[in-house]
Amino acid sequence: MPLSRRSFLQAGLAGAAGSLAARPVAGPDAGADSLPSRWLGRPKDELPTPALVLDLDLFEANLARMARHAHAAGVALRPHAKTHKCVPIARRQLAAGALGVCAATITEAEALAAGGIGGILLTSEMVGPDRLRRLTALTARQPDTLSVVDAAEHADQLDAAAAAAGVVLNVLLDVDPGSRRTGVQPGGPARALAQHVLRRRHLRLRGIHCYSGASAHVIGHAARREHSARALAPAMATFAELRREGVPLEIFSGGSTGTYDIDPALGTFTELQAGSYVFMDVDYRRIGGAGGPVYDDFAPALGVIATVISRNEPRRATIDAGIKAFATDRRFGPEWRAHPGAAFSWGGDEHGILDLATVGRDLALGERLEFIVPHCDPTVNLYDRLHCLRRGVVEAVWPIARGHA
Amino acid sequence: MPLSRRSFLQAGLAGAAGSLAARPVAGPDAGADSLPSRWLGRPKDELPTPALVLDLDLFEANLARMARHAHAAGVALRPHAKTHKCVPIARRQLAAGALGVCAATITEAEALAAGGIGGILLTSEMVGPDRLRRLTALTARQPDTLSVVDAAEHADQLDAAAAAAGVVLNVLLDVDPGSRRTGVQPGGPARALAQHVLRRRHLRLRGIHCYSGASAHVIGHAARREHSARALAPAMATFAELRREGVPLEIFSGGSTGTYDIDPALGTFTELQAGSYVFMDVDYRRIGGAGGPVYDDFAPALGVIATVISRNEPRRATIDAGIKAFATDRRFGPEWRAHPGAAFSWGGDEHGILDLATVGRDLALGERLEFIVPHCDPTVNLYDRLHCLRRGVVEAVWPIARGHA
Repeated sequence: MPLSRRSFLQAGLAGAAGSLAARPVAGPDAGADSLPSRWLGRPKDELPTPALVLDLDLFEANLARMARHAHAAGVALRPHAKTHKCVPIARRQLAAGALGVCAATITEAEALAAGGIGGILLTSEMVGPDRLRRLTALTARQPDTLSVVDAAEHADQLDAAAAAAGVVLNVLLDVDPGSRRTGVQPGGPARALAQHVLRRRHLRLRGIHCYSGASAHVIGHAARREHSARALAPAMATFAELRREGVPLEIFSGGSTGTYDIDPALGTFTELQAGSYVFMDVDYRRIGGAGGPVYDDFAPALGVIATVISRNEPRRATIDAGIKAFATDRRFGPEWRAHPGAAFSWGGDEHGILDLATVGRDLALGERLEFIVPHCDPTVNLYDRLHCLRRGVVEAVWPIARGHA
Repeated sequence: MPLSRRSFLQAGLAGAAGSLAARPVAGPDAGADSLPSRWLGRPKDELPTPALVLDLDLFEANLARMARHAHAAGVALRPHAKTHKCVPIARRQLAAGALGVCAATITEAEALAAGGIGGILLTSEMVGPDRLRRLTALTARQPDTLSVVDAAEHADQLDAAAAAAGVVLNVLLDVDPGSRRTGVQPGGPARALAQHVLRRRHLRLRGIHCYSGASAHVIGHAARREHSARALAPAMATFAELRREGVPLEIFSGGSTGTYDIDPALGTFTELQAGSYVFMDVDYRRIGGAGGPVYDDFAPALGVIATVISRNEPRRATIDAGIKAFATDRRFGPEWRAHPGAAFSWGGDEHGILDLATVGRDLALGERLEFIVPHCDPTVNLYDRLHCLRRGVVEAVWPIARGHA
C-alpha cells in the first residue's frame, strides 16, 4: 500500500534531515566537507588553469531562490544532480528543503547515496543485468529510491530483479512529452503500462515522470510557456485520468531550470527536477526570462578560469582552455565574463582563441580570464574538482563524481 | 653544448629501454600493468555501459605498423600522448621504438613521468607561475624534458624560472604553420626569437616544433599532401636557414596521423608526433587514405559499448550513450560498427538515438552495440579507465590520467 503523497513527502524530508543532522549546510562553513587541498585559503589567481570554479555567494543565492520559489509555488523540489555530480551540493539542496535529488546514472546514484543522500530518483531507464543488480542493491539500502519504466518488457525485468533481491522497487511511468527519446506514449499506452506495473508484485507504482527537454531551451518566456504546456498536457491528462480511475499515483515529476516558473502553474506537478539553476550557463542565459532578454533569475555562479598562453597577433589571444575544458555540444562557446562580446573560437583540445576586436586592448601573456561555460552539465563532467570561492579565495574544494563505471 | 641529433636520438632510446627493462611490453602479458578490476577475465558483454574498450590485437597492429613506417622512413617517433593519457600505452610506444612521447599539459607530463616515461615534449607553451614551477621540477628529475616557446617574453619567463630552479630547459621554437593558434612566424621573427633564446643562459635551443592541425584532416590524400607541404614549407625553410647560419637545431618535430606518410618525405622532419593512430576514429577514417576513400592504414581499435535502453518506436532505438559518452566537437556522431549507415543523433547528456531505417530490423531491449568514436582524444578524456579486450575478453584495465589540475 503506497504512502499518501503528503506522508511520502514528509518521509523524504525527514530522511533527508536525519542524514544531514551532523553535516554542514551552506554558509560560513562551506569548507567543512572540502577535500584536502593545498589551494584552500589561497586566492583564485593562484589556481592552476583551466580551473572549474564556483562563486559560493552566487551559488547560495541560487539555492535559496529556488527553495523559496518551490515553497511559494506549493511544489516539492528534487533537483537533478546530473548537473553537478557533487555530494556537498546535494547536501545543501536537501538542507534547503529538497526532498531528494535526481540522478541520470546508477554510478551517480551510488556516489550520492555513499555521501548520505536519500530520496534518489533515477530518471533514465535502468536496463541490463549490471544496472538492475545495482538498482536493487541501492534500494535494499535506501528503500525510498525511485526509478522509471517505459515498457512492459522493462517492467518485467525490473520485477524479476527485485524479486531475486527481495526488494520492492518504486517506479514512475516515464511518459514521452513528444521528445521521442524515452517514455511510453500518454493515454492508452500509459494506462496499459500502469496496469501491467500494478500487477507486478515487486514493483510499486508511484507516479509519472515526464521531462520535456525540448521545452527547457525555447527562447522567450511566453514561447517557452506555450511549448511546455503543450508538451506536458497529454501526460498531465493521463495522470488525472488514472487517478480518477483509482490508480494510486502520488508523484508527477519533471520540469527544468527553463520552466521552473512555468510548470508548477500547470497544476499537476508535485515536484520539480530543475538542476542547472545552481550553476547557470550561456545556454540558459540566452533563452530570456520573464523580465527580459537575458535569463538572470539565477546568477552564473559557475566559471572556468583560463590563462593567456600566446599573443602573437594584435587583437587576438590564445588561452589554455579548449575542447577538453568546455563542453562543445552547443553551437556557441564560453562567454568571457569581462567582455561578453569578445568572440571565442575553438583552437583544439587544449586551446581557445579570443578575438579582441571589441575589447579595445590586447591581453598580457599569463593574464587570467574567467568564462561562463557554454553548457554546465557536460562541462562539469570534464573536471574532477570544483574550486569554491568566497570573494576570490578558495574556501572549499568539492569532488565531482564524474566518469563511467 | 647540445648533443648531435644522432646521439640525442640514441640517448632517448637508451633511456627508454632502461626505464622499460623490468616492464611488460605489448603481447600476451598486456594485463601485467593492469589496474585491479573485477572485470578482468570476463567477457566484454558483462561490462557496465557506456564502456570504453580497446581491441588489443588491433591496437598492437597499429603500434607495430607505425613503428615499421617510422623506421623505414628514417624518422624518429615521439607519439602524442594527449590522445590516450595512458601510461601503459606510452610504455608500449617506447618499447616499439619511440624516443619519447609528447604531452599537451603539464598534468599529462607529470602522470607520464610518474609512470617511468622519459623523453617528454610538452607541445603547448608552459605559461604562468604554476606551470613554470612544475616544468622546472619535472626537468630537474628528467633532464631530457622538452617544451616550446613562441615569444621573447615567454623565453624570458622560462629562463628566469629555470635559473631559480637551477636547471636548463630544452626548448623548441614553436613556429606557426598558418594556424594562427600559437607559434612565432617563420623567417625573420623565428630567427629573432632563436637569437633571443640562444642568449638565455638557462635555455638550450634544440630545434623547431611545427604542428599543422589544419592539414591533419584535409579530405583526400593528394589534397592533404599539398596542404601539409604548403603549410610546413616556411618553417622547414627557416630550419634549414638557421642551421646554415650555425644555429644548432637538431629536432624538427610535427606531423599527425593524417600526414604520417606525407611529412617524412618533405625532407626536414627528424621526428613525428602522430598520436591518434593507436586508436583511430570516425574523423580520421573519413579523410581517405593513399589507397581509397576510407583511411584504414590503422584499424579502429577503440570503441564504446552502449546498451539499448528504450525502443518504443519501430526502427528507432535509444542507447545509454550521449554527450557525456562521446566527444561532440565534430559535426558527426559515433559510427555503429555493425551498421555504419545507421544514423546516430544526440539525445542528451546520457542518451543517443539510432535510426534503424537502413538496418532492416529492430533492436532488443538490453542489446549491446559497439561504436567507433567520433574523435578519439576528447572521447577518451571522458573516461577514467580503458577496458582492453583480447578476442572479446577483458585482459587488462588501464588508467586514463584525464582531468585538470
